[in-house]
Amino acid sequence: MRVLAISGSLRRDSYNTRLAHAAAEFAPRGVDVELYPPHLLAAIPPYDADVDDLGQPDAVTELKQAIRSADAVLVATPEYNSSIPGHLKNALDWVSRPLAESPLRGKPTTVVGASTSAYGAVWAQADLRKVLGVLGARVVEAEVAVAHAAERFDDAGRLTDEETREQLAQAVRDLVDAAAPVPVAA
Amino acid sequence: MRVLAISGSLRRDSYNTRLAHAAAEFAPRGVDVELYPPHLLAAIPPYDADVDDLGQPDAVTELKQAIRSADAVLVATPEYNSSIPGHLKNALDWVSRPLAESPLRGKPTTVVGASTSAYGAVWAQADLRKVLGVLGARVVEAEVAVAHAAERFDDAGRLTDEETREQLAQAVRDLVDAAAPVPVAA
Repeated sequence: MRVLAISGSLRRDSYNTRLAHAAAEFAPRGVDVELYPPHLLAAIPPYDADVDDLGQPDAVTELKQAIRSADAVLVATPEYNSSIPGHLKNALDWVSRPLAESPLRGKPTTVVGASTSAYGAVWAQADLRKVLGVLGARVVEAEVAVAHAAERFDDAGRLTDEETREQLAQAVRDLVDAAAPVPVAA
Repeated sequence: MRVLAISGSLRRDSYNTRLAHAAAEFAPRGVDVELYPPHLLAAIPPYDADVDDLGQPDAVTELKQAIRSADAVLVATPEYNSSIPGHLKNALDWVSRPLAESPLRGKPTTVVGASTSAYGAVWAQADLRKVLGVLGARVVEAEVAVAHAAERFDDAGRLTDEETREQLAQAVRDLVDAAAPVPVAA
C-alpha cells in the first residue's frame, strides 16, 4: 500500500513538511508513505480554463498521476489568512478537473496541520476537508492540529512531542484502515 | 478617485472579467475603475516564505502597488470547488505579508461574483469576504451573485441583464461612498 503525503508549505524547514515526513514513522508494515516533492507542487501554474482546454500542464499531470497511483493521501497544511494556502487550493483546483475523472474521487484522504500559532491550522484544515469533500475525496477524520509547532520538533526536524506523535500515529492508522480492503492489524 | 478591479478568473472570455469591466460603466463622475491585467495576476508565483524572506517577487510588488495607489478595490470571483480560486487566494496570501504593512489594511473592498451555475459563486464570495476581513480590509457588503452567467452578457461580452446591472451599480455606489471622505452625490 502507498500513501502519498502532500505538504501545503513550500519553505525548506516547513513544520508541515516535517509532519508529513513524520507520518512515515507510523506506517504499518507493508505501507509506504512518500512525500510529494514540494518543488513539484510549486511548479503548478495558476488555474486557467483556457490552458486546461488545450491540455493540462505537465506539473498537474504529474501530481494527478501520483495521487492516482497512491491508495490514500495525507495532506499536511499550514494556515494562511485563516484558510487553505492559495497555492495548495490551486493545485486541488487543477486536480479536480475534469471532476468525473479526478484521481481524488473516492480516494481515502486525511488532513493534518501545523502552525506556530496556538491553534494548529484548524480553520485551514476545516476548509480543506470541505473542499476535498466537494471534489469527491473520501475524507477520513483526524485530530492532528499541531499548535506552537516550533516546540514540537527537535533541531533535526524530528517530531518529538509525544502527544502529537500519538495523534499522528492514530491518523495514519485510520487512513490505512480506510484504504485497506480489510482493516490492517496493529 | 481610483477603484482597482481584480478578476479572479484568468480565461480570456471570463464572465468575472466582464463583470469587473462592467463595473466601470457605473462609476460616478471623477471615479476611474481600472481592471488589473489578468496576466499580471497569473505571474504571481506560489507563496514560499523562504522567497518572501529574500524579497517579494516583482509580480507581487506590482499588485501591492496597484492596491496601494487605489482608493478602493472590487474583486470579481468565480467559484472553484465551492471556494475561492486557489490562485486568487495565493495572490492575497502574498499581499497580506507583512500583515502590518499590507496595502489591503483598511482599504474599502467589495466582492462580487459570477458563475455558470445557479448560485453565482456565493460560497466563494463568502470565503473571500472572510479572508479579506482577516487580513484587515474594510469589507463593503454587496449583493452581486450572477448565476447562469452565460445568459447575462451579450455576444460582445457586455453585461445586459437589467437586474444584474442595477445590483452592480449599487455595489459600485456603496464602494465609492465607503472610500469617499464624504458621500458622493448620485
